[in-house]
Amino acid sequence: MSRFFSSKFSSLDPYVPGEQPIDKKYVKLNTNESPFPPSPIAVRYAENEARLLNLYSDPTANKLTSVAAEKFNVNTNEIIFSNGSDEILNFAFSAFCDSDHPAVFPNITYGFYPVFARYNNIPYEEIPLKEDFSINTDDYCNINKTIFIANPNAPTGISVSLKEIEKIVSSNPHNVVVIDEAYVDFGGESSVQLIKKYENLLVVQTFSKSRSLAGGRLGFGIASELIINDLNTLKYSTNPYNVNRMTMAAGIGALEDEEYTQNNIKIIISNRNSTIKSLNNLGFQCTDSKTNFIFAKHKTIGGKELYLKLKENGVLVRHFDTPLLTDYVRITVGSENQMNILIEKLKNILEG
Amino acid sequence: MSRFFSSKFSSLDPYVPGEQPIDKKYVKLNTNESPFPPSPIAVRYAENEARLLNLYSDPTANKLTSVAAEKFNVNTNEIIFSNGSDEILNFAFSAFCDSDHPAVFPNITYGFYPVFARYNNIPYEEIPLKEDFSINTDDYCNINKTIFIANPNAPTGISVSLKEIEKIVSSNPHNVVVIDEAYVDFGGESSVQLIKKYENLLVVQTFSKSRSLAGGRLGFGIASELIINDLNTLKYSTNPYNVNRMTMAAGIGALEDEEYTQNNIKIIISNRNSTIKSLNNLGFQCTDSKTNFIFAKHKTIGGKELYLKLKENGVLVRHFDTPLLTDYVRITVGSENQMNILIEKLKNILEG
Repeated sequence: MSRFFSSKFSSLDPYVPGEQPIDKKYVKLNTNESPFPPSPIAVRYAENEARLLNLYSDPTANKLTSVAAEKFNVNTNEIIFSNGSDEILNFAFSAFCDSDHPAVFPNITYGFYPVFARYNNIPYEEIPLKEDFSINTDDYCNINKTIFIANPNAPTGISVSLKEIEKIVSSNPHNVVVIDEAYVDFGGESSVQLIKKYENLLVVQTFSKSRSLAGGRLGFGIASELIINDLNTLKYSTNPYNVNRMTMAAGIGALEDEEYTQNNIKIIISNRNSTIKSLNNLGFQCTDSKTNFIFAKHKTIGGKELYLKLKENGVLVRHFDTPLLTDYVRITVGSENQMNILIEKLKNILEG
Repeated sequence: MSRFFSSKFSSLDPYVPGEQPIDKKYVKLNTNESPFPPSPIAVRYAENEARLLNLYSDPTANKLTSVAAEKFNVNTNEIIFSNGSDEILNFAFSAFCDSDHPAVFPNITYGFYPVFARYNNIPYEEIPLKEDFSINTDDYCNINKTIFIANPNAPTGISVSLKEIEKIVSSNPHNVVVIDEAYVDFGGESSVQLIKKYENLLVVQTFSKSRSLAGGRLGFGIASELIINDLNTLKYSTNPYNVNRMTMAAGIGALEDEEYTQNNIKIIISNRNSTIKSLNNLGFQCTDSKTNFIFAKHKTIGGKELYLKLKENGVLVRHFDTPLLTDYVRITVGSENQMNILIEKLKNILEG
């Protein structure tokens, strides 16, 4: 820390993203990337923009917004796009939380939430999950705080039903409820249509997972027009051209190629279910994941040891070194071949 | 504004970027874009990444940082890349200003500075330029505030010498001095090498202007390692994957093709100087621009009228509707053909 760094950040502890190894080639199952390349249409659209990069991107994301509005059956003024969904989440903490509106989220969830809260100097409360890692939705009803729920949750993979989400949203009419649906396409129920009924709901999604655009950086928020206006106020006060031309075009291509996305989702779900079976046979216990990752603990080997041994064997998974999660590893669901390698390596490790 | 929007933003007045018309084709001289496409190497590198977008970008920007460090003759831990230079500027306001370290900048400068200050809830002072629109550098010596100077300045185009910048930096050892060099490649003197001598200096540059990557979104900061660490703390607390894969690769390509960049700069400077001559002949007075834009006022017609008449005639320039700037228009220096059209249209308007 330099001697110039504002004291307001003295306790800020940044988020640590999954490692991006450059030393050697791994079977990389640690950052929940898709094993499939982007849709060929997305690739072509992105390529077409490369030679036009001397011109700024459209800050209103006019065309992408139109295509997305049609797909999600909302109005164009009910969507905002961002440089990855983290940007929208950060804006939401900033816009809708303060000392009168503290943030609240589960004690086990996306590790960025407490970082966003501290970055924005917002008081926050973490509500414990139940022992089975599910969310007790009653804990979030009538609490008059700004609520952040990842649904399905990370890194547990467990989802909450639309009915339960509606109960939370409807019981907190004076506070924004943010539903972070980064992984919803792999088996969760989306709350998007509830925005027509509840002006306090903000749904956040990403193109990083089911649409294979993690490296392009594209996220979006869907909410009532007034909430989107607030988020736009923050966008235009920080980085109006936040989404680059190539990614904006790739996003349009990805939405146009829904068949490709749906097919990939089917394969991921199938690979997830078969991998969970194999893991069970090897003595693992897995949560009921509705995502593109598996959250698993072994009956005898701890999470850190598993992570290290898999890394030695050329397979990267993610381990969270905190008391509640230390028994577990989070394994991205990759291609069939990647899953076969994982299971082979695990067999060797467990036999060894 | 929604009823959920935090009261801390009640007086926030977002930055208004130059209009991006979608209704018809204009000769677009209003957002200081380059008239030249990106280097073919940059285009090819960006295209090559499109099919890899399922994988996250490298949050450390390892390769791009190495190439840039060599070019700018600094260490790799003295550079940070961002999603456009606005992102770094926002981080700098956030990191190095607070109620004990108010921000200070000229009263005529990049219009985003007061927005960043208000967004981050930072007190700020605007120091008047001299009557000829130059910066009185004595005003910035020994002031114990966090200083932001665009050099060359916007929208005046006027630059400050390296010697004067050093005087400011050396006289404020307890505060960060941010030199925003968005336009430095068109005739200004860069302060980058001063970072070896002064740990309180942060130099911000962009790939949007001389390197034709405005639509890719790529900016960077160069400073002492500790200052870069602070900025990285904010990056990793908000958006670790802030620069997408394609733009990161395009940036490498742009740096590799220095000859292309230098050639384009020469043409822009030549077009600027000849256009200023033509404008003088038409009764315009222009500042001594060291940028890719011209700041001009006419002896009889006001800036707003000129802007509107040029727009009617299919040429977009920028007018700032504030008392100090209302006489002027800011005209991006484009291709020779664009400049010829501009002068033709102005002749018609002035004769008309």
